Amino acid sequence: MTVLVVGSVGIDDVQTPFGTAQGVLGGAASYFALAASPFTDVQLVGIVGDDFPREHVDLLRAHRVDLAGLQTVPGGATFRWAGKYEFDLNVAHTLDTRLNVFTDFQPRLPEHFRDTEFVYLANIQPGLQLDVLSQIHHPRFVGLDSMNFWIGNPETRATLSQVIARVNAVFMNDAEIRQYTGTYHLLEAARQVLSEGPDVVLIKKGEHGAVAVSEAGVFVAAAFPLEAVKDPTGAGDSFAGGFMGSLAQSGDTSWAGIRRAMAYGSVVASFAVEDFSVDRLRTLDGGQIAERYQLLRECTVLEPHQAAAA
Amino acid sequence: MTVLVVGSVGIDDVQTPFGTAQGVLGGAASYFALAASPFTDVQLVGIVGDDFPREHVDLLRAHRVDLAGLQTVPGGATFRWAGKYEFDLNVAHTLDTRLNVFTDFQPRLPEHFRDTEFVYLANIQPGLQLDVLSQIHHPRFVGLDSMNFWIGNPETRATLSQVIARVNAVFMNDAEIRQYTGTYHLLEAARQVLSEGPDVVLIKKGEHGAVAVSEAGVFVAAAFPLEAVKDPTGAGDSFAGGFMGSLAQSGDTSWAGIRRAMAYGSVVASFAVEDFSVDRLRTLDGGQIAERYQLLRECTVLEPHQAAAA
Repeated sequence: MTVLVVGSVGIDDVQTPFGTAQGVLGGAASYFALAASPFTDVQLVGIVGDDFPREHVDLLRAHRVDLAGLQTVPGGATFRWAGKYEFDLNVAHTLDTRLNVFTDFQPRLPEHFRDTEFVYLANIQPGLQLDVLSQIHHPRFVGLDSMNFWIGNPETRATLSQVIARVNAVFMNDAEIRQYTGTYHLLEAARQVLSEGPDVVLIKKGEHGAVAVSEAGVFVAAAFPLEAVKDPTGAGDSFAGGFMGSLAQSGDTSWAGIRRAMAYGSVVASFAVEDFSVDRLRTLDGGQIAERYQLLRECTVLEPHQAAAA
Repeated sequence: MTVLVVGSVGIDDVQTPFGTAQGVLGGAASYFALAASPFTDVQLVGIVGDDFPREHVDLLRAHRVDLAGLQTVPGGATFRWAGKYEFDLNVAHTLDTRLNVFTDFQPRLPEHFRDTEFVYLANIQPGLQLDVLSQIHHPRFVGLDSMNFWIGNPETRATLSQVIARVNAVFMNDAEIRQYTGTYHLLEAARQVLSEGPDVVLIKKGEHGAVAVSEAGVFVAAAFPLEAVKDPTGAGDSFAGGFMGSLAQSGDTSWAGIRRAMAYGSVVASFAVEDFSVDRLRTLDGGQIAERYQLLRECTVLEPHQAAAA
């Protein structure tokens, strides 16, 4: 089945200890779409200015991404982000953010997008996320991302809670879920979020993998042990893309299906960070995903307990 | 088989967001010994002053820990450490360190300790670690811990390299291995350490688990997803205790044996941090370890790849 994503499409300038990239494709929806595309067709809802390079449009189109929902504002400037990572790639500094046309983004879903059942609400203002949900006729599995900015403001936080009550999966990193719940312990925090309605909470821990918590249990998805990371930008959205894409492809939203989708998310994210921008995702195919999935399995499988402890 | 540990035995004052503990048993060797004791007999080499509480001696003795190698300095004061953890338990502040009798520690192994084959060199001056190794007749599997203080000083670093060349397993956290090798990428850093002689490098990542790297491959051991952490002090040494204790118990130093021992290390460390000081380790038994090992297995097992990606 198809998966739909609503979120930012932008142009990034990125510096990491391993190089720089200027004017490259960025934005949560771009990463998500390319990460999901090895699994299924993708519908993208976003906004750009008419400065948005034609090559990015062509790239997305060439990867089964339907851009009928991508608004182009005549005379407008595309969302831009500039950032820098420390030697410890977990430490990121935003050097510049220009929302540009993104400021007035009003997501409007083309008619043929409204029957899509698998939906990912990337990090945008919670009010807009709610508005998108109202345009979907029969949502079957909705994933949600957010950020500290919306959690910290009482007004947007209240709206975010309304969105959380209506989705199936909440994606948060450890800092965000601690902020949202005021609870340090992650399992307790996850259960608090679950009590607001979702079926599963997916806690993203960057280079350390991700943890899923649901009524059915806890699943720890290791990050694939990588030889080299060049640019961690978009890792979380690539994880979400691999997760939602594989879930839409299999249609299996059971706990077993969610666990498997978590592993696909880990695998796809591991490719995404191996090169700048979406460069590694351009050439990613199912065979490479299958191979790395198998490797991830091999390096995490735990032998049965031996009657060792006396 | 028995496992021998050389390292600090001390008295701690600890503050965490979840409580405080004053004058409690601490030190790497104490944590290690109690963490290894559910698996096998332990021999401890260390030093204390005659202010060291009798109850701590009794506790260790009651847990199959042979204290023939614990020197007591008449009129001396035991090593003391005071520390405080932030709400983010990964952020620790040392408030006070008094080495006291530990300053003049010269490890001397009792005769019946010298035939022990499984040895853990906890974090002490590398020169002393080398000296301990020279007292062991037939080492079969030696584990080594160290710290930034010895890595950063050119002189002690050179000695540390000599120790590394003679051991089987090097335990380092991610910051330490990056410092030691000057390499950001952990797999590359681990291979650099392997090239100096050891069979396996065990990278400790605290609440995120641990990664083992050897010629045979990479193993990612998840941390057990805990409901609540009260005090992370001693987590690394408890991990090492579970690892070395279970390895000595099984005698299986193959890659499969090392992977299993990693999981036991994770499990034992997860108990250690659930209460202050060594309190949770006091009552830990094989049944509890087996049960949590099984749970860890259940929440990390990855289904086989489905021919999903197109």
